[in-house]
Amino acid sequence: MSYRGDSKSFLDSAGVSTGDSVKIIKKDISYEGIILDRAEDADDKHLVLKLDNGYNIGLGIHDAEIILLKKGEKPKIELKPLNIEKDSKKIDISIISTGGTVASIIDYKTGAVHPAFTADDLLRANPELLEHANIKGKAVLNILSENMKPEYWIKSARSIADEINDGVYGVVVAHGTDTMHYTSAALSFILDTPLPVVLTGAQRSSDRPSSDAYLNLLNSVTAAKSEIAEVMVCMHGTENDSYCNLLLGTKVRKMHTSRRDTFRSINTSPIARVHKGNIQILDKEITYKKRNDGEVKLRDSLEPNVAFIKSYPGISEELIDYHIDKGYKGIVLEGTGLGHCPEDLIPSLERAYGEKIPVVMTSQCLYGAVNMHVYSTGRRLISAGVISAGDMLPETAFVKLIWALGQTDKLSEVKNIMQRNIAGEIQDKLSLKYFLV
Amino acid sequence: MSYRGDSKSFLDSAGVSTGDSVKIIKKDISYEGIILDRAEDADDKHLVLKLDNGYNIGLGIHDAEIILLKKGEKPKIELKPLNIEKDSKKIDISIISTGGTVASIIDYKTGAVHPAFTADDLLRANPELLEHANIKGKAVLNILSENMKPEYWIKSARSIADEINDGVYGVVVAHGTDTMHYTSAALSFILDTPLPVVLTGAQRSSDRPSSDAYLNLLNSVTAAKSEIAEVMVCMHGTENDSYCNLLLGTKVRKMHTSRRDTFRSINTSPIARVHKGNIQILDKEITYKKRNDGEVKLRDSLEPNVAFIKSYPGISEELIDYHIDKGYKGIVLEGTGLGHCPEDLIPSLERAYGEKIPVVMTSQCLYGAVNMHVYSTGRRLISAGVISAGDMLPETAFVKLIWALGQTDKLSEVKNIMQRNIAGEIQDKLSLKYFLV
Repeated sequence: MSYRGDSKSFLDSAGVSTGDSVKIIKKDISYEGIILDRAEDADDKHLVLKLDNGYNIGLGIHDAEIILLKKGEKPKIELKPLNIEKDSKKIDISIISTGGTVASIIDYKTGAVHPAFTADDLLRANPELLEHANIKGKAVLNILSENMKPEYWIKSARSIADEINDGVYGVVVAHGTDTMHYTSAALSFILDTPLPVVLTGAQRSSDRPSSDAYLNLLNSVTAAKSEIAEVMVCMHGTENDSYCNLLLGTKVRKMHTSRRDTFRSINTSPIARVHKGNIQILDKEITYKKRNDGEVKLRDSLEPNVAFIKSYPGISEELIDYHIDKGYKGIVLEGTGLGHCPEDLIPSLERAYGEKIPVVMTSQCLYGAVNMHVYSTGRRLISAGVISAGDMLPETAFVKLIWALGQTDKLSEVKNIMQRNIAGEIQDKLSLKYFLV
Repeated sequence: MSYRGDSKSFLDSAGVSTGDSVKIIKKDISYEGIILDRAEDADDKHLVLKLDNGYNIGLGIHDAEIILLKKGEKPKIELKPLNIEKDSKKIDISIISTGGTVASIIDYKTGAVHPAFTADDLLRANPELLEHANIKGKAVLNILSENMKPEYWIKSARSIADEINDGVYGVVVAHGTDTMHYTSAALSFILDTPLPVVLTGAQRSSDRPSSDAYLNLLNSVTAAKSEIAEVMVCMHGTENDSYCNLLLGTKVRKMHTSRRDTFRSINTSPIARVHKGNIQILDKEITYKKRNDGEVKLRDSLEPNVAFIKSYPGISEELIDYHIDKGYKGIVLEGTGLGHCPEDLIPSLERAYGEKIPVVMTSQCLYGAVNMHVYSTGRRLISAGVISAGDMLPETAFVKLIWALGQTDKLSEVKNIMQRNIAGEIQDKLSLKYFLV
């Protein structure tokens, strides 16, 4: 097992090994569960406990007491690299893992207590995937997606580009759900892809009866084999296991903390429904890029020094000044309604404009589009140089500004990029019909 | 008319009066429309122009050129105070105005060019309301709701309490839509009301054929006469004029920039549907406080020094430190998923806890509930003293923290208040069925 140092001593003190049932008491709270293995590069101050409810939790060993309840069974499989023979009649699909629920506990289905994802774990847990394609697994990161950051977007995009250049037919990216939509937007701008790039994840871990991991992975492989050459999210379309939706990477958002059909297209329809190996295009109005023979283009220069600020009643203009003083290169505001903020902020926004720091206005309504021409506050914001995000999601506009500032340092060009459609994020005409569907 | 000083000189220079059609050229952009009157207390640097598309805009006169196109007709009504005789058979309802689209152009229906709201304007524009109640109008504020701030919540709440103490049967509050849900949450915590307090507004001004102003007002008067003693929002339930929804003030959010049915209950059902004078309770599971003979309670001590911070990939822990250093008394985080933020923030969140500054975690998913027990990041946040907002909306949690810190300065009591239901904002059991409906 990969416990070492202090956490190994802690387990040894009670004669506990991976797979054993234990009780851990910490600050008057006690936890019962099974000790799971940890990732190879984990610290020696925490251990991972699988609770009876199926959740895995990390627990610091500081001030903790451990009692062995029952010795566990040894993992039944050996974690040697798989040597799967390639089937020349099948298509090659790469699955790139960045971490998250779908990856981190995915081998639990096999009964093995080994939560860290490696290239082969996914196939051990989901051997059925091999019926549908030659699967090539690759672990790029092993993080919880709340810890995702722009430098990891670049790392992931480069790995995807490598796979495409290696000749795979489609790419699946396993990702935590928390920030999957930020990453799907980032990959949409960074990559100009000739084939499908499909992000997927799980809201429930593989070892829970209600897990969505396998179906999401399977449908993502189907999507990766399709003719839709976009960066997309493929996740459950309903609370049951009926089908998955395929959602454009720049128009998608996690809308529910726990439902399996949490990912939703905003201001547009999902591109397609994926079910039992079939792709059903949902709306003829929705356009998408077709699979083609072009090269993948990697536009991976980013400027991560961008602030994302939610406007709220009583917000101080000093917060804008703080970001200017700190040397931030751009600001995305999540304003109210059609794209407003308190008038008290306007002098500081004018200052940002004077210092050539682009300020982009989005709406915390999420649905609809910014229109700063309607009310006086909006007009004043336009005069202060504030750039409208149109019908872009706030999260997408934030990611796009990071990308735009990586492409140019000219304010006029940044403004031009922000208001021009690059990857489906801006629609010519906003359709009101895609509201809460 | 209420133009004076520079703006009056500017209009006089072209022989223009209120109601005239003009062309204004400014920075190579020209605007055509009708000059509207301004609020009495407006500055003398701007004028209000009604564009042909029905929108009213504010234009600074600096560097502007004005051309008279056509003299307008004089307003047909005199703006003397109305002396409406009270009908002793009818119920007394107060309409309190704070500004916004519903109030600011409401008298346009009568043909009068007088955009500022006074107590009687609303009745001039909507004389039909008098068939349903004795209406008493009162203008408390005249602001665009993006400029709403905690001190105005107090001012509005006190006015409402005065009306209730004066013996009215119900209160309607006219409010801009941008931040109506922040104000409805604030009034929910500040006021313990024995009768209905109904916020309403308009997504389209009264002078546009598609205006929702009158129906929203009319249905709000119906709601104010009802037996539901809650602070609520009453707005269109669909894009057409079929009915309005009555939404609990702490569970409601503006979800679309421009649709008329933009206000939606999150994680719950609307309390009722309002249509042609009838109130139809929608879901027997939804509980509400009944009209009663109690006194109104005004708990109007607030601590406005609360930050509302959206978590995003790459956010710096320095932003948390900044707010601590600035003397903020509380922080509400809009985290990802079940209530997470990048682990890089945790040391600064621990610092906040050490300095007795409550940090409350909400989710940018909006739907669902924070649960920090599931993943390791959440556990670490709990250890760092971060308080879960449960199924509270981020906006409601922000408002509630402002209110909680006004009630006590003890951290343990603040935590207790934040996790205890006060005004329907926290549900015992989260129902997954109220998703995007």
